[in-house]
Amino acid sequence: MPGRVAFVGAGPGAADLITVRGARLLGEADVVLADALVAPALREQAPQAEWIAVGKRGYAESTRQARINAMLVDCAQRHPLVVRLKGGDPSIFGRLEEELAALAANGIACEVVPGITSALAAAAATRRPLTRRGVGRSVLLATAMTRDGAPPRSRRADTEVFYMASRQIDALRSRLLADGWPAATPVSIVSHIGWPLQEVSDHVLGDDLSGASGRHAGGPTLVIVGTGATAVDLGRAGVPIDGHPSGAAGPAP
Amino acid sequence: MPGRVAFVGAGPGAADLITVRGARLLGEADVVLADALVAPALREQAPQAEWIAVGKRGYAESTRQARINAMLVDCAQRHPLVVRLKGGDPSIFGRLEEELAALAANGIACEVVPGITSALAAAAATRRPLTRRGVGRSVLLATAMTRDGAPPRSRRADTEVFYMASRQIDALRSRLLADGWPAATPVSIVSHIGWPLQEVSDHVLGDDLSGASGRHAGGPTLVIVGTGATAVDLGRAGVPIDGHPSGAAGPAP
Repeated sequence: MPGRVAFVGAGPGAADLITVRGARLLGEADVVLADALVAPALREQAPQAEWIAVGKRGYAESTRQARINAMLVDCAQRHPLVVRLKGGDPSIFGRLEEELAALAANGIACEVVPGITSALAAAAATRRPLTRRGVGRSVLLATAMTRDGAPPRSRRADTEVFYMASRQIDALRSRLLADGWPAATPVSIVSHIGWPLQEVSDHVLGDDLSGASGRHAGGPTLVIVGTGATAVDLGRAGVPIDGHPSGAAGPAP
Repeated sequence: MPGRVAFVGAGPGAADLITVRGARLLGEADVVLADALVAPALREQAPQAEWIAVGKRGYAESTRQARINAMLVDCAQRHPLVVRLKGGDPSIFGRLEEELAALAANGIACEVVPGITSALAAAAATRRPLTRRGVGRSVLLATAMTRDGAPPRSRRADTEVFYMASRQIDALRSRLLADGWPAATPVSIVSHIGWPLQEVSDHVLGDDLSGASGRHAGGPTLVIVGTGATAVDLGRAGVPIDGHPSGAAGPAP
């Protein structure tokens, strides 16, 4: 009789952005298979569990995914509760489908606990809602990478958020201009969301963004374009709260 | 010296989908201004707080928003910590901008704690990832309502999720067909996500959806169209987990 697997979204960076349900499952798990990008402090929520870091670099993506699938099945066959802890939300760029299918093929039951995807965390941290009354009625979540030779396309939403953009900022900028976004379109770049290294920079699409590429290198990076990239006028209230100018870079006092 | 306001995303339905940070702030709040659609059980997280339900019907939207803005400012001027509890995520269709601006105009500091927006909760509950390797590389979040006379537009993402769709299902179907989505496109309709009344129905865009409109009437409803609406083949593992076929309709065992 195999155990079950709970996919749990860890949210980005800060350990206290996991859901209450996710934290409870961590505390009950026999084994945790954790992505590289989850907050190290989450391990303290599961002192009873065997903690296995997966997602190490050095393998081709396909090899890596096949190894994770096999480990999940193996762990569930030996333990009552396996938590598969993923950065952000499992359903958004989380490769969830492959792992669900591998478990299903082996008759292993599973559930999915959602997490805070980084677009939502960035919006909260910068206090810039992704939707705005009347002018920001749609949000696109996409990856920064494009297939070679993809034709230009029109704007797809009032706010577009590009994941995994760290090494794609210049190429993305060129593509958005070709797609018809005006040079004056606001662009907000957010890297290391929820981590101490969190960095936010503001631009317009017509700017030379090569400096921003260096500044945001080496970490998980979002590029937010359009209505949702503009700051709400916070006036006097825009002052930092206990050293966390974003209000979400760390625990509140 | 006024207090501060923490906007907290309650997630949809189930009380344990709030973040750990959000739950902690509830436990510290002096006053909670809560939307109608947050889980009643969250009130138990804030026994020390004055709990004020806002968002009652019977006012025009603009009157209602102005009243909430005024209450927020008034509460923050009299108490150290006010929590503004919103269903889902404050940054996605949460009218956050107006409330941030009202506080800023009065010099009141604030922070934003993200929450699980209902698209993520629906994906988890139905175990249908919104992105899929190779074929589902973008997700659009939009409202079902359209401006009168809006021209047809092309498909905007591999998966499109429409919020506030309860009374718009037929009109939305017509518009999507006019926009060029094929009649065979999968459509998943999810209402009352995370509540005991949760309901999921599967269709294709060419179907007569008037029956679905009745079935999902009267509750918060999402319409998911495209790649993310298709079920992952869960085979034998598709069996219900302790009466929660979705894996997220209630607390796990």
